[in-house]
Amino acid sequence: MGGTDVTVIGLGDMGRALASALVAAGHRTTVWNRSADKADELVAQGAVRAASVEEALSASPLTLVCLIDYEVTRTLLGPVAEALRGRTLVQLSNGTPEQARSLEAWATGQGAGYLDGGIMAVPGTIATPEAFVLYSGAEKHFTAHRPVFEAFGTAKYLGSDTGLASLYDLALLSGMDYLFAGFFHAVAVATSHKDVTAAGFTEFLVPWLTNMAHQLPALAADVDSDGEPAYTQGLDVLLAAARNMAQAARDAGVRAEYFDRAAADLERQLAEGGEAFTASGAVRALRVPGVSGDRA
Amino acid sequence: MGGTDVTVIGLGDMGRALASALVAAGHRTTVWNRSADKADELVAQGAVRAASVEEALSASPLTLVCLIDYEVTRTLLGPVAEALRGRTLVQLSNGTPEQARSLEAWATGQGAGYLDGGIMAVPGTIATPEAFVLYSGAEKHFTAHRPVFEAFGTAKYLGSDTGLASLYDLALLSGMDYLFAGFFHAVAVATSHKDVTAAGFTEFLVPWLTNMAHQLPALAADVDSDGEPAYTQGLDVLLAAARNMAQAARDAGVRAEYFDRAAADLERQLAEGGEAFTASGAVRALRVPGVSGDRA
Ligand SMILES: NC(=O)c1ccc[n+]([C@@H]2O[C@H](COP(=O)([O-])OP(=O)(O)OC[C@H]3O[C@@H](n4cnc5c(N)ncnc54)[C@H](OP(=O)(O)O)[C@@H]3O)[C@@H](O)[C@H]2O)c1
Ligand SMILES: NC(=O)c1ccc[n+]([C@@H]2O[C@H](COP(=O)([O-])OP(=O)(O)OC[C@H]3O[C@@H](n4cnc5c(N)ncnc54)[C@H](OP(=O)(O)O)[C@@H]3O)[C@@H](O)[C@H]2O)c1
Repeated sequence: MGGTDVTVIGLGDMGRALASALVAAGHRTTVWNRSADKADELVAQGAVRAASVEEALSASPLTLVCLIDYEVTRTLLGPVAEALRGRTLVQLSNGTPEQARSLEAWATGQGAGYLDGGIMAVPGTIATPEAFVLYSGAEKHFTAHRPVFEAFGTAKYLGSDTGLASLYDLALLSGMDYLFAGFFHAVAVATSHKDVTAAGFTEFLVPWLTNMAHQLPALAADVDSDGEPAYTQGLDVLLAAARNMAQAARDAGVRAEYFDRAAADLERQLAEGGEAFTASGAVRALRVPGVSGDRA
Repeated sequence: MGGTDVTVIGLGDMGRALASALVAAGHRTTVWNRSADKADELVAQGAVRAASVEEALSASPLTLVCLIDYEVTRTLLGPVAEALRGRTLVQLSNGTPEQARSLEAWATGQGAGYLDGGIMAVPGTIATPEAFVLYSGAEKHFTAHRPVFEAFGTAKYLGSDTGLASLYDLALLSGMDYLFAGFFHAVAVATSHKDVTAAGFTEFLVPWLTNMAHQLPALAADVDSDGEPAYTQGLDVLLAAARNMAQAARDAGVRAEYFDRAAADLERQLAEGGEAFTASGAVRALRVPGVSGDRA
């Protein structure tokens, strides 16, 4: 194994996109995956295949991990942790802030540098202007390896608290998950009509959701501020719309529980004397009383 | 009452935005609202205040209604329906496709022309390039009044089935409702960290959601096609992420039921032998067996 610049462990859909971007950007790249054949195409592109995890870690000063989770990461790296000494480990697998902080403690205990990352892209947008990857942990590691990170798109450093990248990542993914769930529901309702295709309807949905995403900074300002909210809406108008969304879903043969629940929640708020919907109220309603997270 | 070009009934937040855009575009505009003082500013801008619903309908060949719902619309128009004869009624209040078809039947029974509409904007974006309003019903009415409709932004005609505008409207609103719910959840999780503000986090969320919205046409194509899907993802990777989103919410003191349910659903699919997530499978899972909507 000759010395390479960077190692990628985990060659699923995302790991392969990362490794391919590194090779394309001219970085000498070592790769390893449990199912070895997933490296074939990368090797044809110029990557070096490692025969073991230990060999993979030893090949480069920097190793990026992109596996299914932190548990598999520990299982694979644990037995060969010695090979990490004096090197830097960047965990890009999805995980929680707690898992990130715990893996950092383990890695630094082995004499390794550590960064945690969150990939905000799909494999097809890696190395395009749309992609951004979030990093947190000791800033010196980010600065030292930034040129490698920039092969994937924009590299954003969030701060020295190692949990920050996971926190942002999971919050952003939560937003995406709701977006996609809304897309599936909306498409199911619209395509209940014989004249409507998913593609035709989505031509309306994408600009609509994009426009509505432009409203979010104003709502965020309301959440941050203690003053008069810039945006409010009557609970009665929202209830009427929620009931209509539920009824239209039912008429279309689409599951309506989500909007039935939304309507019931608005009814409860009205019964309790509420009048107007506000963004800060909506966020407050999601908090579990007595649990403060890292706000304290 | 002198003859005006267009009448607006209902001067809530949205009705006032519509009437104001009409006045600004140079249309002679009559307005009516239950709480009469909501017309004051419009009258100062040049609108004409009607003393009754009947006077409002009689003033113009075209009346736009923007009220809380179809029931209030019927209650207000029912007693003075005679004034609609030979005129055109456009219902812009939120409602279901069934309600739209039923109101059309009533209006045409009174000798009126009818169109149903769905306003895809917030009051602040009316008369900006972002706004679009959907219309359905007899095309001749759309064509005849198009110049009026264009005061609000882009006017889109969907077809002669009067239910189409409501169907699209409620499907699009459903997508928005999920988008906003995701925003509130994401902000609640992110701002559990003492160093994170809603505004700072939303600077990441808006481009992220916009990028992800760009993925939707590819998913829509998968929903429409019977062939090999272009987009799939392993249920195991999605389950790992769903569990992490639930756990991160719990750690942040944020209600986690939504992602607990998502994780349970993915577990069930894996237990039933499923491997990959597909968009067409996600839409199919939302359909209630045996109810066909207007697909038949
Ligand atoms: N795909 C996306 O759109 C996307 C976007 C952002 C972030 N991510 C994140 O990127 C990470 C990888 O996702 P992916 O899309 O690349 O998933 P994937 O295609 O399913 O790949 C999973 C990877 O984990 C490995 N793995 C799973 N179980 C293992 C075990 N017990 N021992 C050893 N290796 C194991 C797989 O190895 P084998 O090949 O041998 O099975 C493979 O390398 C996840 O954390 C995901 O959340 C993905
Ligand atoms: N605001 C938005 O962002 C938005 C966006 C798209 C579509 N829309 C739709 O536009 C429509 C109006 O919404 P809005 O935001 O303007 O709501 P709003 O500000 O709450 O206004 C509600 C309107 O309905 C009238 N109304 C309610 N109950 C009535 C009754 N029993 N008798 C007579 N009039 C009654 C109100 O009259 P008073 O003033 O006398 O109470 C007012 O004119 C809704 O269908 C909504 O879904 C709104």
